[in-house]
Amino acid sequence: MRTNHISLEKIKISDPFWNGVQELVRREVIPYQYEALHDRIEGAEKSYCIENFVKAGRVAAALKRGDTVPVYPVDKWQYTDDNCDKNAFHGWVFQDSDVYKWLEAVGYSLINHPDSELERKAKEVVGIICAAQLENGYLDTLYIINDRSKVFTNLRDFHELYCFGHLAEGAVSFYHATGDRRLLDAALRFADLICSTFGEGKKRGYGGHEIAEMALVKLYEETGEKRYLETAAFFVNERGQKPYWFDTEHGVVSKGEAYHYNQAHRPVRQQDEAVGHAVRGVYLYSGMADILRYSDDAELYTACKNIWENIENKKLYITGGIGATVDGEAFSFNYDLPNDLAYSETCAAIGLVFFARRMAELSPDSRYGNVAERAIYNTVLSGMSEDGKSFFYVNPLEVNPEASHKDSRKRHIKSVRQKWFACACCPPNLARLISSIGEYAYSENESTVFVHQYVGSEVQTDNADFSVKSDYAASGRVSFDISAKRPFALALRIPEWCGEYSISQPFTLKDGYAYIEITDCTTVTAEFKTEAKIIRCSNRVRANIGKAAVTKGPFVYCAESADNGENLQMLVLDSDTEFVQDGEFLIADGWRETPQNRLYSDYCEADRTPCKIKLHPYYRWGNRGENEMTVYLRTD
Amino acid sequence: MRTNHISLEKIKISDPFWNGVQELVRREVIPYQYEALHDRIEGAEKSYCIENFVKAGRVAAALKRGDTVPVYPVDKWQYTDDNCDKNAFHGWVFQDSDVYKWLEAVGYSLINHPDSELERKAKEVVGIICAAQLENGYLDTLYIINDRSKVFTNLRDFHELYCFGHLAEGAVSFYHATGDRRLLDAALRFADLICSTFGEGKKRGYGGHEIAEMALVKLYEETGEKRYLETAAFFVNERGQKPYWFDTEHGVVSKGEAYHYNQAHRPVRQQDEAVGHAVRGVYLYSGMADILRYSDDAELYTACKNIWENIENKKLYITGGIGATVDGEAFSFNYDLPNDLAYSETCAAIGLVFFARRMAELSPDSRYGNVAERAIYNTVLSGMSEDGKSFFYVNPLEVNPEASHKDSRKRHIKSVRQKWFACACCPPNLARLISSIGEYAYSENESTVFVHQYVGSEVQTDNADFSVKSDYAASGRVSFDISAKRPFALALRIPEWCGEYSISQPFTLKDGYAYIEITDCTTVTAEFKTEAKIIRCSNRVRANIGKAAVTKGPFVYCAESADNGENLQMLVLDSDTEFVQDGEFLIADGWRETPQNRLYSDYCEADRTPCKIKLHPYYRWGNRGENEMTVYLRTD
Repeated sequence: MRTNHISLEKIKISDPFWNGVQELVRREVIPYQYEALHDRIEGAEKSYCIENFVKAGRVAAALKRGDTVPVYPVDKWQYTDDNCDKNAFHGWVFQDSDVYKWLEAVGYSLINHPDSELERKAKEVVGIICAAQLENGYLDTLYIINDRSKVFTNLRDFHELYCFGHLAEGAVSFYHATGDRRLLDAALRFADLICSTFGEGKKRGYGGHEIAEMALVKLYEETGEKRYLETAAFFVNERGQKPYWFDTEHGVVSKGEAYHYNQAHRPVRQQDEAVGHAVRGVYLYSGMADILRYSDDAELYTACKNIWENIENKKLYITGGIGATVDGEAFSFNYDLPNDLAYSETCAAIGLVFFARRMAELSPDSRYGNVAERAIYNTVLSGMSEDGKSFFYVNPLEVNPEASHKDSRKRHIKSVRQKWFACACCPPNLARLISSIGEYAYSENESTVFVHQYVGSEVQTDNADFSVKSDYAASGRVSFDISAKRPFALALRIPEWCGEYSISQPFTLKDGYAYIEITDCTTVTAEFKTEAKIIRCSNRVRANIGKAAVTKGPFVYCAESADNGENLQMLVLDSDTEFVQDGEFLIADGWRETPQNRLYSDYCEADRTPCKIKLHPYYRWGNRGENEMTVYLRTD
Repeated sequence: MRTNHISLEKIKISDPFWNGVQELVRREVIPYQYEALHDRIEGAEKSYCIENFVKAGRVAAALKRGDTVPVYPVDKWQYTDDNCDKNAFHGWVFQDSDVYKWLEAVGYSLINHPDSELERKAKEVVGIICAAQLENGYLDTLYIINDRSKVFTNLRDFHELYCFGHLAEGAVSFYHATGDRRLLDAALRFADLICSTFGEGKKRGYGGHEIAEMALVKLYEETGEKRYLETAAFFVNERGQKPYWFDTEHGVVSKGEAYHYNQAHRPVRQQDEAVGHAVRGVYLYSGMADILRYSDDAELYTACKNIWENIENKKLYITGGIGATVDGEAFSFNYDLPNDLAYSETCAAIGLVFFARRMAELSPDSRYGNVAERAIYNTVLSGMSEDGKSFFYVNPLEVNPEASHKDSRKRHIKSVRQKWFACACCPPNLARLISSIGEYAYSENESTVFVHQYVGSEVQTDNADFSVKSDYAASGRVSFDISAKRPFALALRIPEWCGEYSISQPFTLKDGYAYIEITDCTTVTAEFKTEAKIIRCSNRVRANIGKAAVTKGPFVYCAESADNGENLQMLVLDSDTEFVQDGEFLIADGWRETPQNRLYSDYCEADRTPCKIKLHPYYRWGNRGENEMTVYLRTD
């Protein structure tokens, strides 16, 4: 039972929780990033983003005039003042994408909250981008500035198809928000070049970092042009075929697990485990699911299902984070979910939300919404500080600041959010997800409207208009004032965490959704009883043996030393505790062990004294300076 | 109360446990390494050891003749067929040291067990070495073969002083065993060159990898030549002084923690924490303690004591291993003792035994012997397989083979012992320690004979001759038949693990030793009650929260999946268990949890069924193919 999500133009968010988060993005993140793209943040590493587009614009103009243009090397991941000519491209190879992600976030934000000054700035940026496009439609500033003759010769390492994907996604968002077609037209011209370059009987390559797959489907949906869908399918189908394209383009015969990193180790229909770079993975899997909207490809669907199940059952942090290892920013092996070494990149959780939405729209099952909820309310939101000015790239489940400072194995584990990143993929990704949260809330087909996430909003669908009041994050209460346009079913996701709930109308349960027949204008209220509870992780996960976590509603909680003193490992949670809500904190009963100074002694129970353990929503941690944090506590 | 250890010539080992281990070294390790040094092991990476000495001998002869000799670069850590000329030096920069360590082990072995064929082979090797020495006494094949003009210009990275140290130690051992002075004379000539090169008003350098300090003191003790002691003291005193020698020789101004790795971050008397490369650390600290035998240097002694206490109380694995992190093969921060990421190099445990012996000889306290015992019976012996043919370089306390194969963070954690190493420092180091175990057992002064380790043996001391019968490893029973030469005190170390013991004569206790007045020929028997027991690690160590280990006598035990099935983390040890000895195994009561297939669930106690947990001495693990292992078990 396929459904389509409701487009943002038809959703007006009005939610006590989400309005606040979206406003933080609109007021802080988007303006801050605008300055960052222009390299006007004092003390921050330069992004070179706009500067590259300006340089590329000059090259494009010179080429149009027939002038000779210099050539610089295209051989590095990062181009700095130290390793390249000042007139050459600067920054990371994927630097353009930050501008596109910013524009995508701006588009979503403008849809929900018009802002003429922001729109003016964005249009100016769009002008700079469009000026950089070559006459054949090519648009990637690294190659435009440095060496036009080398385009599409290193798909494995450099990010032309990745930047194209973000361009397309940004362009669609911007067009929907403003009606300004310039960026969309630029994206389509680049897409046309890609479609005429890649495919059967043409170049048999695909991007080292996936996203073009999703983006081309989006352009197909926007335009109805089949070639975009076909090229997306080509990229999906070709990945991992032998001879490996990456071998061909590099003139090597790879050995071992060379292309697991890019999910290109075997054809996608033969994949059943999430491997390699986690962000790349979920972007690919999202693209595969996108293709499935337009084809009945049982093999491809089985691959998507198997990979999903692998993630959900064996590679998912309780916080919805994925990618357990810093090495290759990758999925680790099954059940390897270390807390203090986690990578759990913000972008990977965002990509998991993309994958989840697509899977739910292919065949509704609450598992997808449940996992998306874990990711959104915990790892995604954890990515941003409470003032919207600093960010986590990595979202560990246990942090000891001393280890972060002294242990090279934990160098990626930051104990406080960072101002900005040279490789700033996460903050703009976060901005675009939060600004488009409505897209993840609803989907429909001719007979059913699904509510996957509970977000207070005014929504127009083909079946009905809704006025949704939601206090879901705080109390689990939601109500739907429904102006039905025809009889349909309203399907509400029963949250995984909810043992007890009530819905005001009769319903039937299927695959984790409560289906309510709506025949007329009416009001449906649902209350998902939101209790603090202790969650155990499977004993297949070695890191969590003897420990447990606390959740309440969609939120995972954690202990911080700011509230509980140092040495959080000496806390023991009473598994029979009652929980008391104290503002945003949960208070639990437990014990604190007396520190043991002797390194090794004959066994005896540690001395311990009863104590209150103060728990903080995970996404709120690290907002009070550097301190210890742990999601899992020893339990007794 | 300083004491001197009893030299090996005066000790004849006769011990049910140690004879077996020594025989394994004599019959397997020494002959195997002889072949390895000659690159005659099929399938093993080449050592180039003897080949380098042969090449260097040709260079030395050519130089003597006044011939011109080619020059090759001296700029790499490892010289391979791929990166250097076939006539140049090959292998690691410290490759010579393996030959010296082998000769040292051979010397110790010959003292205890004459073997004319082995002696003949060793003498042949000595001849090859001596032929390589330059006329000025210099002897390091890397520089002799590649570039004589560069000697002593990169003390930080290359290992001339380190190789010299092993030469000296090997030479003394070989001379004591055979009376053949050739290698000793070569070592003394090299030492003389070093003494005339380094010191006040001369080159103010010191070795990047310590050992020359210990070795020069040994040469002083052998010859009485003060200059060796003075140069040893110079190396100790100069280390970490500013400007840093390593900065001077490299023309850099280092930043941050550059020289923690070499313990050269500050003058040694200002050091109070064990930091940097663990083997280098304990070699330096041993050298510092050696200097203290000949000076009343309160500051230096305080540094040694502080560093010792730091190791013993905050940086020591229960197995006696040190060096918790693979990065820099280094000590980590206080209480950072991860089990599954441990480095715990065999050589570092050996170096800790060196340091312990020296500290005990400066001022007897059972803490030193206790720690040495932990290291010897667990990490050192773990380094070698039961057939003497394969070796651990790294000695983790928890191994999941899947993680070793799939997790790059655990690539150093081998799940089975390896045949040999390109960087083969550990096997010959192990051979020399095991072959000289007697040196660690006894020390004396004019009034007291100390027994630090219990090793069955015939021993001649100045105070008495002893016939020691020991079943210490198995039952904790030891007896001493004493032929007293004069009245003296016999001081027996009371093992840390022993709660109950009996000694046949009256005794007084001091600093962990039982002092027994001996006035005549007599027999003293001691029985240290050897019980299996559960040991807890301090709750300051995060890795061991909720877990405990099992020991019996000097041995730490571990669980292997060969005996207990996979997923050792699902075992729970009953803290009230009785233990049953079953051959070399200990059987304990516990439970096995039922595997939980759901990744996250509402908390409840895991289902579990009573089971027997079979425990194996740690040093015996990994002898039955690849399997899981853990020292720490969850405890209830």
